[in-house]
Amino acid sequence: MTVRLQTNAFQITKPALLLDKKRVLRNIKRMADKASACGVSFRPHCKTHQSAEIGNWLKNVGAMSIAVSSVEMAQYFRRHGWTDIQIAFPANLLEITEIDRLALKADIALLVDSEAAAKELDKGLSNRVRVWLKVDVGYGRSGVSWQTSKRLAKVTQAILSASNLEFEGILTHSGHSYGAKTVEEIRAIHAESLSRLQHVKTGLMELSPPRCRISVGDTPTCSVADDFLGVDEIRPGNFVFYDLMQQSIGSCAEDDMAVGLACPVVGVYKDRGQLVLYGGAAHLYKDFIEAPDGTRVFGFLADVTPDSLGRPNRTAPVISLSQEHGIVQVEKGLLEKIRVGDVVVVFPAHSCLTGKLHNEYITLQGEKITRM
Amino acid sequence: MTVRLQTNAFQITKPALLLDKKRVLRNIKRMADKASACGVSFRPHCKTHQSAEIGNWLKNVGAMSIAVSSVEMAQYFRRHGWTDIQIAFPANLLEITEIDRLALKADIALLVDSEAAAKELDKGLSNRVRVWLKVDVGYGRSGVSWQTSKRLAKVTQAILSASNLEFEGILTHSGHSYGAKTVEEIRAIHAESLSRLQHVKTGLMELSPPRCRISVGDTPTCSVADDFLGVDEIRPGNFVFYDLMQQSIGSCAEDDMAVGLACPVVGVYKDRGQLVLYGGAAHLYKDFIEAPDGTRVFGFLADVTPDSLGRPNRTAPVISLSQEHGIVQVEKGLLEKIRVGDVVVVFPAHSCLTGKLHNEYITLQGEKITRM
Repeated sequence: MTVRLQTNAFQITKPALLLDKKRVLRNIKRMADKASACGVSFRPHCKTHQSAEIGNWLKNVGAMSIAVSSVEMAQYFRRHGWTDIQIAFPANLLEITEIDRLALKADIALLVDSEAAAKELDKGLSNRVRVWLKVDVGYGRSGVSWQTSKRLAKVTQAILSASNLEFEGILTHSGHSYGAKTVEEIRAIHAESLSRLQHVKTGLMELSPPRCRISVGDTPTCSVADDFLGVDEIRPGNFVFYDLMQQSIGSCAEDDMAVGLACPVVGVYKDRGQLVLYGGAAHLYKDFIEAPDGTRVFGFLADVTPDSLGRPNRTAPVISLSQEHGIVQVEKGLLEKIRVGDVVVVFPAHSCLTGKLHNEYITLQGEKITRM
Repeated sequence: MTVRLQTNAFQITKPALLLDKKRVLRNIKRMADKASACGVSFRPHCKTHQSAEIGNWLKNVGAMSIAVSSVEMAQYFRRHGWTDIQIAFPANLLEITEIDRLALKADIALLVDSEAAAKELDKGLSNRVRVWLKVDVGYGRSGVSWQTSKRLAKVTQAILSASNLEFEGILTHSGHSYGAKTVEEIRAIHAESLSRLQHVKTGLMELSPPRCRISVGDTPTCSVADDFLGVDEIRPGNFVFYDLMQQSIGSCAEDDMAVGLACPVVGVYKDRGQLVLYGGAAHLYKDFIEAPDGTRVFGFLADVTPDSLGRPNRTAPVISLSQEHGIVQVEKGLLEKIRVGDVVVVFPAHSCLTGKLHNEYITLQGEKITRM
């Protein structure tokens, strides 16, 4: 094993986002199989990869519908052939013209969590869209709280009585699962979320909606849960790549992590036991996991193999990032094997945000895959 | 005063980076005047703005030379007419071909801090480049430590004896000034840096280099210091925009902060006293300052005026960011004035990284300014 990237398939001269395609395909297949086994629709969220080509890999395992997090992303995937697109973000009234135009060409679903938004949408749209009531089951970011039955009914009623909105059901993102420390905690959040959603659904049935589907979404619960009782669709996103955050809470194994940042080594400092990489906050993103002693870890070097990204090398954490520089603490034995001009690979803490800083991926076979 | 952006000059429908051009021009003029008054060359660092047009504003106050942080950025500014470009990042040996090509068309300067890099550069280049010895005066990121006179002499000797490298002098980035808490601390770091560089220069004079200039660079010390005794050039970068980090340590005033992120409001949660913005980690960047109680603040809403970004509203901090969502804690009186569909502006914690997430700026007059 070595942290030095050696390949003839492509040449790295500056920070580049590498993709272990075999792992991505395996992650996708595993989630699609689970959805199928559990009898829920698979609506993968595309905000992590933002790539039409990776969208095709999802199509290849049978996905017919996707979630995205912006109108722009919906437009992009519409152009690449998707016709069932949920914009899984509170409806942005300032983009109502663009949404209306999209709704002419595709089956568009929006998220709503206030009467005001439902009314404004109905007024501004001339084409019909599906609408999910966004429910907050404990994350506390957006959505109507699962505990406020009057408000839930009011917003639902506003959607039901709007002529351009079709009430689809209730949707949540249990994002607090990202803060879990163990698989058991994730499972507990999952069970609690489902029971709260059932509670909400039962209440709303008094309004006799033509249908009331249930959509859940976060990668941690979708990765570890085995049953989705009462759920109609799942929309995990990060699972295509995973990352150190997901691995640290038990969502995935080390060898499921499918993206790494290739970085030229520009400094080897034997006295401090550190490498300086060309690869900083502008390439890796400054998100972090916490080491047991509370220090921030922005990534770990990968012990790469000839045909995979390998596993994280826990003795080589990225301990600091400035705009273009990454600083890696490295043990003596490893440090002596690395030279200025080598290329190493860093597993990111949070792959969604690392991706945002790049226009393309390079597979380990040298294939370039563009992002939106 | 209001946090609601109201303008007829342009339309915001999604997160966009606003530029208070008047402030940028004033920041630029102030720094150029200081350089001139102190008798040092002004080599502004372009990594913060990364824009040819803003480069022209620097030209207009007399700047003839720039610093950049990557070969790609050097190529971009070369295409836009700059001919004296310092790549202020440890020389990346993997881009030697690109550097060599650039050196044909412009006066290129590199940073070196090891004998190995000096030798490899000399071997790989066919065109002459200037080389600065990168000295670490206490930041501990890159550079030869100012205390290791033997290594300093060895690396300098390697540069002096290389036929394609022209020894230009010694350079430092006192990045530890960013961690200062007061103007006095910044001043102390500045004085210490200059004295350590003088110490290094005195030692190197024994090698009789044809010249040994001194280049210093960080925005905090360049903003607060009034004398640059012995210094030949300054290369601040962040000063064009400043941000909450700089303001909090005393580098700038509140009304010097010249960029803000315009964000649509997609949720108003009266029970929690929070706004949800379309504008998250993918638009603002997840860098933060710490409030007195230790909590992380990713930005403050701006109390905008009709013709400026105004000042930060300390009662309205951005307390949490996910990929597309920003959550702002807001007092009751203010919350009641804000509706879903409004646009607010957020001052970022760290403008260099916020900029990295955008392709353009929009001035308050509606002019679009592209980035690299």
